Amino acid sequence: MNASTSIAAAAVSGATQSSRRSLRQLLLEPASIALVGASDDVGKTGGRPLQFLRRAGFAGTIYPINPHRSQVQGEPAWPSLAALPEVPDHVFVLSPTGTVLETVRECARLGVGVVTILASGFSESGPEGAQREQQLRQIARSTGLRILGPSSLGVVHPRNGLVLTANAAFAEPDVPSGKVFVASHSGSMIGALVSRGKARGVGFAGLVSVGSEVDLSVGEICAATLDDPGIEGYVLFLESLRHGDALQAFAREAALRGKPVIAYKLGRSSAAAEMAATHTGALAGEDDIADAFLKGLGVARVDMLETLFEVFPLARKLPLAGASPACGQRVAVVTTTGGGAAMVVDQLGLRGITVQPVAGETLARLKEAGIPGSAGRVLDLTLAGTRYEVMKKALDILLQAPEIDMVVAVVGSSARYQPDLAVRPIMDSADHAKPLVAMLVPDAPQALAALTEAQIPCFRTPESCADAIASVLARRVPGPVAAVPALRGEGRALSEAQAYALFDALQMPHAPFACLPLQGPVGDLPFDYPVVAKLCSPAIAHKTEVGGVVLGVGTAQELDGALATLRSNLARNAPGTACDQALVQPLCKGLAEVLVGYRIDPDAGPVIMLAAGGIWAEVLRDRSIRMAPVSVETAREMVAEVRLLQTVSGLRGRPRGDLEALAHAIAALSRLALRPELGVLEAEANPLMVLPEGQGVVAVDALVLQAC
Amino acid sequence: MNASTSIAAAAVSGATQSSRRSLRQLLLEPASIALVGASDDVGKTGGRPLQFLRRAGFAGTIYPINPHRSQVQGEPAWPSLAALPEVPDHVFVLSPTGTVLETVRECARLGVGVVTILASGFSESGPEGAQREQQLRQIARSTGLRILGPSSLGVVHPRNGLVLTANAAFAEPDVPSGKVFVASHSGSMIGALVSRGKARGVGFAGLVSVGSEVDLSVGEICAATLDDPGIEGYVLFLESLRHGDALQAFAREAALRGKPVIAYKLGRSSAAAEMAATHTGALAGEDDIADAFLKGLGVARVDMLETLFEVFPLARKLPLAGASPACGQRVAVVTTTGGGAAMVVDQLGLRGITVQPVAGETLARLKEAGIPGSAGRVLDLTLAGTRYEVMKKALDILLQAPEIDMVVAVVGSSARYQPDLAVRPIMDSADHAKPLVAMLVPDAPQALAALTEAQIPCFRTPESCADAIASVLARRVPGPVAAVPALRGEGRALSEAQAYALFDALQMPHAPFACLPLQGPVGDLPFDYPVVAKLCSPAIAHKTEVGGVVLGVGTAQELDGALATLRSNLARNAPGTACDQALVQPLCKGLAEVLVGYRIDPDAGPVIMLAAGGIWAEVLRDRSIRMAPVSVETAREMVAEVRLLQTVSGLRGRPRGDLEALAHAIAALSRLALRPELGVLEAEANPLMVLPEGQGVVAVDALVLQAC
Repeated sequence: MNASTSIAAAAVSGATQSSRRSLRQLLLEPASIALVGASDDVGKTGGRPLQFLRRAGFAGTIYPINPHRSQVQGEPAWPSLAALPEVPDHVFVLSPTGTVLETVRECARLGVGVVTILASGFSESGPEGAQREQQLRQIARSTGLRILGPSSLGVVHPRNGLVLTANAAFAEPDVPSGKVFVASHSGSMIGALVSRGKARGVGFAGLVSVGSEVDLSVGEICAATLDDPGIEGYVLFLESLRHGDALQAFAREAALRGKPVIAYKLGRSSAAAEMAATHTGALAGEDDIADAFLKGLGVARVDMLETLFEVFPLARKLPLAGASPACGQRVAVVTTTGGGAAMVVDQLGLRGITVQPVAGETLARLKEAGIPGSAGRVLDLTLAGTRYEVMKKALDILLQAPEIDMVVAVVGSSARYQPDLAVRPIMDSADHAKPLVAMLVPDAPQALAALTEAQIPCFRTPESCADAIASVLARRVPGPVAAVPALRGEGRALSEAQAYALFDALQMPHAPFACLPLQGPVGDLPFDYPVVAKLCSPAIAHKTEVGGVVLGVGTAQELDGALATLRSNLARNAPGTACDQALVQPLCKGLAEVLVGYRIDPDAGPVIMLAAGGIWAEVLRDRSIRMAPVSVETAREMVAEVRLLQTVSGLRGRPRGDLEALAHAIAALSRLALRPELGVLEAEANPLMVLPEGQGVVAVDALVLQAC
Repeated sequence: MNASTSIAAAAVSGATQSSRRSLRQLLLEPASIALVGASDDVGKTGGRPLQFLRRAGFAGTIYPINPHRSQVQGEPAWPSLAALPEVPDHVFVLSPTGTVLETVRECARLGVGVVTILASGFSESGPEGAQREQQLRQIARSTGLRILGPSSLGVVHPRNGLVLTANAAFAEPDVPSGKVFVASHSGSMIGALVSRGKARGVGFAGLVSVGSEVDLSVGEICAATLDDPGIEGYVLFLESLRHGDALQAFAREAALRGKPVIAYKLGRSSAAAEMAATHTGALAGEDDIADAFLKGLGVARVDMLETLFEVFPLARKLPLAGASPACGQRVAVVTTTGGGAAMVVDQLGLRGITVQPVAGETLARLKEAGIPGSAGRVLDLTLAGTRYEVMKKALDILLQAPEIDMVVAVVGSSARYQPDLAVRPIMDSADHAKPLVAMLVPDAPQALAALTEAQIPCFRTPESCADAIASVLARRVPGPVAAVPALRGEGRALSEAQAYALFDALQMPHAPFACLPLQGPVGDLPFDYPVVAKLCSPAIAHKTEVGGVVLGVGTAQELDGALATLRSNLARNAPGTACDQALVQPLCKGLAEVLVGYRIDPDAGPVIMLAAGGIWAEVLRDRSIRMAPVSVETAREMVAEVRLLQTVSGLRGRPRGDLEALAHAIAALSRLALRPELGVLEAEANPLMVLPEGQGVVAVDALVLQAC
């Protein structure tokens, strides 16, 4: 080692190579890598990256760094980063938690491009770890050093042999190369994804274990690869929704470029198990918001692990940007096996997709062509129709039928034994503009491999077939980027009267009200009795909890008594709380009671929610969530998704509620997302009464939190 | 062919062999088979059974029957059944629909044991087909000939080379032999099951395509095999619930013998339920009745196709008869991969099984043993803990922990690369009394095969793992056989007053009432005003539809007017309908409104249902169903399953409803199943008002249908 060629001196001038290379290059195509804490023992975690990189034939320079050895795995080792003859593009820190900060500081000092941290023991391990993590974040911000991790198992980029990982799964030499890029919160999953992908004929353009995303996040990493023509789509394995801004920017751009994004996100169940509450914040569990967020960005969120390996060709066939609007939901099923097709129809039905029987005209065309078809929900060619010409002709006619948006071919035993009969016609029909999907009922690995090779959407199980179709059809074309209010924090409450003033500015309807001095006197009201009287103060967010509401006040005299009750309840239940006003409103009973809530989620940004109100809010997850703002059209979709509202939609001659006014109110409240100057963190009309058709909706209570 | 040795003559004496053999022997171990319509062309459906039987080395006698040929596939052919030298045990009719009846009649005449019919074109094809099917049923009933099908693809029994099927999938010579017996409504599925089973290391003791069950049903066929020690469990592929009595008898006996029954049933979605109806000609069975039926009989109903091949070892480990009560729901998860385990926890959570963190004492034992564990929901050994001793010790401690009923080990990449590290300890711990389940996160076919071979429950995907566990834990130990009322038909309605009399006999509470002449006069009532007045007649089942209810009647004078209104509504809306009584009841408002209904389902038998009442009944499937009768304890479970009732269970200080009285009322109504002498087909309290705790429940309307 020659000190004059070391980077310690060069770094002083700041003239390092790394700074001129792109994030993608530093991360996935580094010219040089340093392995800090490289072990001589290939059985140890610290020994793996060197072994894997060499085995994969990585062509760049690798610097094993180990102050205790002159050689590591037969290669010369370096005592420190500072001793290297150049500034490495990418440093993988394999050493223990305690030494990480020092190494990262050195990376920053030297001008390293990206540092990847294997160790855990940061924010997940308590206050001391959280402090360490904060320091990492500080270094990244102040120096421009990009940090991957901590708790990152590394980066794999098969094209150039970059197997820069400590994940034991990559001991297997041949990482299947392909066009899908993977970013995963879980490091252990990237190994499982590779082996499962390999078994299913799916290859990868790259895999990144992002760890706890102290700096580089899933969104930023994926965005850095969008220009790569070798990457045609993305698979995300998410434990939670984090760094929503970066994810949003990436997903929008990916949609524009027709590169599908697929996500598997954990956490459906914790949301399901969570006890509902009346408050928007608690009512909308993290997973529901994440779900609305992902779908709203055009991400196909799948429910099953296996779908991750099967959905890509279908998502690719239906680019979001091209579709105007997104692909229709009218799915037709053709089959050689009634029982097999019934499973697919059943699974689609469970996911809200009702397979439609073909139209009479199409049936006539099938008949004319001599296709032995039934007039049922599924076109069952039966065993007798398991012939190339029959299946091919049936597919041609179905794909051309104007009432059909997508065709699913469910193939029985012939898929295994005689793929020429019913699988080859699928392959020969796949270039049609409409998506054609194959589900093979027997175990038929060869036909499956051939279909996969031909990039035809094909599925091993009825469940993953339905999951894939549902996830792709549930994507929404991302709207224009909203000026997301960068508001965070606890906020302070407005009084109910102040909240109504905000509602007025938004054209969000509410019941009329009058404010009185809490001490009285009671003057004339601008509306008739009976009324309700409430404490009105920014200091009292939850009035009922302090006895701050008196219902059914029938006369001015009773109102006088009600004010006295409110005063005494205030004194008893919230002594010392500032409140000198009462708010009086006419009693108002709607056909249905809902909650409309807006809030800025710290991860997802502004969201709008419509939920069943009253007692139902507590026992039922009957609600619809979207990213805000929403159009009136989208708000109508939300109204249709809340089951409570079916009771006021004209069912069995019951009176109709003014659901159109409700949709307008939802859209109005959601436009808070376009008004950052109002500084609103959270706004909720709860309850909002849905009046009979033509009479509108009115909020009869309101809660608003404003940024401090 | 020698006429003197033909059976035509022998049959006259009625002395046939077949009549002395058991159904199981005739079906699965026939000494002789005749193939009516055997084709010389092995590519044709009618040519397959002979080819398959020969290839599989079936040792019995086979008689190809073809009046047009002297030879079929190189074997001598016979011109007719009557020309055979003996009465065959089993006849497979491969000829077209039009000739089937004649052949079946001949089988009956000759004394054949079982005839299997391949052709379709019976009840599913219209009135003419339905008539043909009726004739088949008639022949079976009157002659004792057992019929399998129509629309049966045949019977396979690998042990003796009986590949008596026209399913092309059996062209593959080696049907994997094993201990699971399959009965399937879908004939094409038996081929898919075999290939999928083979891929997953699962073998079969037999497979029967039951077709449309004109005579032999799933239940009777399976019951006939219960004595076979080579059969250790059953897999049913059901399109709908049919022949419930036979299924029930079989499932109860299977539970007693510790032979698990697994079912995949189509029809969870409404679209598929409808398909089953058009496909089989059976009335669409309500899926939730079928679900209650299957679970109540201890059948593990799985949701996913793949689970069929994975759940058996777990079901076998937890025999229903032995468990008292059934296995607890407390599942612990140990893992080497946090991300992988989180998927399993999530999927279990979605199915209502909340993985519990281990108790402090167990954690202490783990710590003492040097196990690197976390105190979270999952015991994560991490990559560092992926060692034989660590995993083995962890499993030992968890399996011994009293707070744990089942242990799930989720193994990461080592399952593929180094199974000795974390898979072998699972194999070495599997003889513990508590079930130990393995889920492998990577694609790890060898480890999976080894675990399967060792009969350890093991799963390829987190979804099928959770599906299997949930399906097994949802089984209920079948109660004693009820004297099922053999009541069927339309029935006739009772008047509301008559229905209350029945309720009194059952100790089913209802509101007090008085009957008045519809013409008046109004005398004194045994309760206070306000009241409700209703038309009361067996001829008026749905009173509201004819304006037969007047609410809020405040005085005797008003009641006089109400009777006049009822009279005029009756005359206008239901002219000529016999009704000379009015029923008067005090107005009664409960904390919640439910529906409690009993009915004799034509397939499942007596069922009892509790559902949310009022408007919610129409938009929400908020209900719980069991087979009747139910104990009060089971009724309490039902109460807990209806979400509406959470609103009156003490949530957030709201008043509690008398849910204990509700449970007693449910149990009371369900006991109709024990009172066949009452002849009740259907009885419903709707609404039943749930009063505040301690005040009971009261039916305020009642509908009863009695057998005519």
